[in-house]
Amino acid sequence: MTNKDVRTPASSQSNGELAPADGAGVSASPDSGGAAASPEKGETEKSDTGKSIGWHKAYVEGSRPDLRVPARQVHLTNGRSVTLYDTSGPYTDPTVDTDVRRGLAPLRGNWIIGRGDTEEYPGRPVSPEDDGIKHTSPRGGLRNLDAVFPGRPRLPRRSRDGRAVTQLAYARQGEVTPEMEYVAIRENVSPEVVREEIAAGRAVLPANVNHPEIEPMIIGKRFLVKVNANIGNSAVTSSIEEEVEKMTWATHWGADTVMDLSTGRNIHTTREWVLRNSPVPIGTVPLYQALEKVDGRAEELTWEIYKDTVVEQAEQGVDYMTVHAGVRLPYVPLTANRKTGIVSRGGSIMAAWCLAHHKESFLYEHFEELCEVLAAYDVTYSLGDGLRPGSIADANDAAQFAELRTLGELNKVAKRFNVQTMIEGPGHVPMHKIKENIDLQQEICDEAPFYTLGPLTTDIAPAYDHITSGIGAAMIAWWGTAMLCYVTPKEHLGLPNRDDVKTGVITYKIAAHAADLAKGHPGAQEWDDALSDARFEFRWEDQFNLALDPDTAREFHDETLPAEPAKTAHFCSMCGPKFCSMKISHNINEQFGGTAAGATAEEVADGMLQKSKEFAAAGNRVYLPLAD
Amino acid sequence: MTNKDVRTPASSQSNGELAPADGAGVSASPDSGGAAASPEKGETEKSDTGKSIGWHKAYVEGSRPDLRVPARQVHLTNGRSVTLYDTSGPYTDPTVDTDVRRGLAPLRGNWIIGRGDTEEYPGRPVSPEDDGIKHTSPRGGLRNLDAVFPGRPRLPRRSRDGRAVTQLAYARQGEVTPEMEYVAIRENVSPEVVREEIAAGRAVLPANVNHPEIEPMIIGKRFLVKVNANIGNSAVTSSIEEEVEKMTWATHWGADTVMDLSTGRNIHTTREWVLRNSPVPIGTVPLYQALEKVDGRAEELTWEIYKDTVVEQAEQGVDYMTVHAGVRLPYVPLTANRKTGIVSRGGSIMAAWCLAHHKESFLYEHFEELCEVLAAYDVTYSLGDGLRPGSIADANDAAQFAELRTLGELNKVAKRFNVQTMIEGPGHVPMHKIKENIDLQQEICDEAPFYTLGPLTTDIAPAYDHITSGIGAAMIAWWGTAMLCYVTPKEHLGLPNRDDVKTGVITYKIAAHAADLAKGHPGAQEWDDALSDARFEFRWEDQFNLALDPDTAREFHDETLPAEPAKTAHFCSMCGPKFCSMKISHNINEQFGGTAAGATAEEVADGMLQKSKEFAAAGNRVYLPLAD
Repeated sequence: MTNKDVRTPASSQSNGELAPADGAGVSASPDSGGAAASPEKGETEKSDTGKSIGWHKAYVEGSRPDLRVPARQVHLTNGRSVTLYDTSGPYTDPTVDTDVRRGLAPLRGNWIIGRGDTEEYPGRPVSPEDDGIKHTSPRGGLRNLDAVFPGRPRLPRRSRDGRAVTQLAYARQGEVTPEMEYVAIRENVSPEVVREEIAAGRAVLPANVNHPEIEPMIIGKRFLVKVNANIGNSAVTSSIEEEVEKMTWATHWGADTVMDLSTGRNIHTTREWVLRNSPVPIGTVPLYQALEKVDGRAEELTWEIYKDTVVEQAEQGVDYMTVHAGVRLPYVPLTANRKTGIVSRGGSIMAAWCLAHHKESFLYEHFEELCEVLAAYDVTYSLGDGLRPGSIADANDAAQFAELRTLGELNKVAKRFNVQTMIEGPGHVPMHKIKENIDLQQEICDEAPFYTLGPLTTDIAPAYDHITSGIGAAMIAWWGTAMLCYVTPKEHLGLPNRDDVKTGVITYKIAAHAADLAKGHPGAQEWDDALSDARFEFRWEDQFNLALDPDTAREFHDETLPAEPAKTAHFCSMCGPKFCSMKISHNINEQFGGTAAGATAEEVADGMLQKSKEFAAAGNRVYLPLAD
Repeated sequence: MTNKDVRTPASSQSNGELAPADGAGVSASPDSGGAAASPEKGETEKSDTGKSIGWHKAYVEGSRPDLRVPARQVHLTNGRSVTLYDTSGPYTDPTVDTDVRRGLAPLRGNWIIGRGDTEEYPGRPVSPEDDGIKHTSPRGGLRNLDAVFPGRPRLPRRSRDGRAVTQLAYARQGEVTPEMEYVAIRENVSPEVVREEIAAGRAVLPANVNHPEIEPMIIGKRFLVKVNANIGNSAVTSSIEEEVEKMTWATHWGADTVMDLSTGRNIHTTREWVLRNSPVPIGTVPLYQALEKVDGRAEELTWEIYKDTVVEQAEQGVDYMTVHAGVRLPYVPLTANRKTGIVSRGGSIMAAWCLAHHKESFLYEHFEELCEVLAAYDVTYSLGDGLRPGSIADANDAAQFAELRTLGELNKVAKRFNVQTMIEGPGHVPMHKIKENIDLQQEICDEAPFYTLGPLTTDIAPAYDHITSGIGAAMIAWWGTAMLCYVTPKEHLGLPNRDDVKTGVITYKIAAHAADLAKGHPGAQEWDDALSDARFEFRWEDQFNLALDPDTAREFHDETLPAEPAKTAHFCSMCGPKFCSMKISHNINEQFGGTAAGATAEEVADGMLQKSKEFAAAGNRVYLPLAD
């Protein structure tokens, strides 16, 4: 993202009425270095030069007043600034008054209504069963969504006359939607590139018409690699507030989408709160809730119960749904001699159903009907890999690739119905077998976006699976995966807490950015360059503020050299004040910086004797005197 | 490593007199699960079945009674055991009485003496200056090494008549030394493969004749990928005991070698303590100590001071030394327009010297003489990459590759003198530029072992550079790097503490093992398979004990499900007791496990109807009743 047209927040937004920013160009508003440290807003920190430091919310304006793309603008102590992609939503804008009980403003509200192809309708009745509360009032129950969320009243929307109201449909018709323009600005590419990639099925822009609160984002191999964070209560622990907090926490550190994988009580209500407060697309696995509705008995699942659950979640605003329609009856026995069988929950539910009825999967059989439902809300498919390998031994086996071929077939069906589609991928895969996964997926699925979990490159390090998988994630993203599902240190062991969520997100932002660099994404290296410049020039505060995690970087520095002067000192604790390689480099740069550019070693050596004499005359000083 | 011939410790060892183990085959001695948790020994933990659990020190016997290769034997609750490579030294053998003031027994003592090609000699006088104590007693000082270490008296050894007493020389003469046999057992390959790889210069076995305490290990692309951990006091913090403790801590978690990069006071004495207590090869950068001797004034360095420092360290027993002989005068200006100049301390010292004198590097000029010194002690070269890139922007530039070509030239010189040699590599390199590094190094340096720092795949994550670099490390190791120098979370920010050392080592063991898997190292996958089997069968204690870090894995599990019964429960906190994908898989395995092996999906599907009926007859139970 370039710096031009970046504006800082000048007025508060509410209920979708976005006032235009005043002033032109870049102007910093005093804001918190603390905003990078925690979701609290409004703190102001000043450097000793009196300038405000840290990062600030800024907006890049599009072609219409209500199209303002947020960015994280880092102000450096040398007077420059660096503008970075920002996923943290209005929570980090001190001019916006957010309240989790009211929800975020419907940023896209006017865009959706303006298209005139959707309509409000009463929606299906919400029942206590939707929240996992059994055998109380079988019919009736809550009449609409207001009862589960205290925010503004709202009826669900869907397409008029069963038309496809998807970004894919618009893109194919040659239309650049405001959502497409929004992501084009975010990605620093032209809107036409965005439209083309979506039209070709190589990218998705998940944006349910019932989730107007999101800041649009795109998932595709020609764009920045994205990161998903999973949250969700379970039968063992649960709390609505905790899940909303985890969502904002994850997006604060850089999660591009969040999947709500709740399985316990209050599953409907939790999802409503998460959706109304989420600035990023929300994904789910409807099968989990459907299973709750039949008391965990997979064989009692029916197409009707499943479809009703999908409608329920689509009305709430879920942006993409994992559908395990590739777990077909004949593939189940292929997993029998695996080391770790079926490790996907969705996959195992469908396998159990197929076995119990000796029938083909109802998801596979009813896939076209499901496409019609998703097209009416612009819910994006995430075709689940229910047969993904759960161990190194099972990677790239017959079951996995049989399912992948079916996902390729379903991808073509979904496209006929104008449903945006991405494909999920493994799992546990050793490094030498990773590339085959992405190559085969791209070939079989017509370059639909690949969305992978890791992959984990070894099984031996429980408690460090963010790292075993971060390695595989960086590699597969370099080779073309569009979105990475994070893995936390608790994988295989327990439920992630706040620290685990942060560690997972940061690890995956590293993997994603490493891949952006390797793919040569426009502007990706500017971030690295800015940080390395700060490092070379001993601008410690700038290093911290540019870091993916400013808090921990600052804390680690202060452990060894806590005093405030050390943050402006021209040395670091690795070498101490007496000796410093950076100083020598500065000296070399001063001597040769002008002459050496583009010259060969031999050419430069000819001119070195004179320089050497100057060096000696200056006292051979390679260690400059320190201020302290 | 196979299980045959594995014996558990049966008698204590002292002063190199190794009594043969009694009993044959595998027999477990009661030992600590706690040994995996901390360096303390002798604790015994019993499972509720009365069996001892955790891991135990075992020895694989070689062709002579004093050749016993340590292994970590993990005893599983199903009665089986898994034998893993062990770097923790005698500290985890409860039958050995270790004392840091006495040092470890000289395991290789008789092998070195038995060759008859070395002799003891008085050694150079140790002076206070060697410890960084200036201007006190300019001459004389301490007479021998005893004064700096309270352990057994000892004189240094060197070759008789200036002969090369290196493992390279022996290998070229067709001799399989006990050291070679030792590593062959450790690596599960034939001794002849070890000899061939060393003779060809494709592997090194760092083993100074003055460091008889080490358990021999090998570094080469045909062997397990190794990990080095750096320790060392500095001008900012220092303590001898701390450094010794850091060394045993690092090897406890899996460090294969340790580099002592101390730069402050007591540099000589610290090194002596580290060497006498280290079961792994120790590396150094002699230039750091030489610079201390000239009060940090690079231009005052001389070949004589440097050579004397190398002899001092060789007499102490340093196994490999980083020598920045590739930083030549004409290359210095090539770094002038870099983003981060010269980030290597050794590189910048030599660059400063070259500039000050306008002369070619004294290390380059005297390289042959240096080879003679190293050959006399079997010190291995680690040819330093003083011009490695310190940022993404500087990767693979002219300065870096100019130096690499010189290292290739010096490698050939070293081989003429029978000096074992490895080559150091970067640094900061984006993923798409990593492969060029290893390919070029292997070509230019005649396949000499590559020893890389990371590489870091992005600059934007200070405080997480163990991860930014772990990604690059895994990749470059897969492609042929033989040893990885770890990076801790404190990189760029401060000095690593105990936790940082552990995190760095564990992260790099992951990278190394992921590479071993990708390279198909014999037996590497057995570890993953054992852990995945335990996971699939809900043997929680086995999962913990097989984990790279059993403590943290157990702790994370207990955070969510702390009760003792949960460790034997057939479910985990991710799904809770009601629903479990693993259970469904077990059910599928029971139904189809026998029939599906090798069959196609279609063949198996034909036989499924009958199975489905059986499934229904059994009550469609995919959730087995739980014990609790």
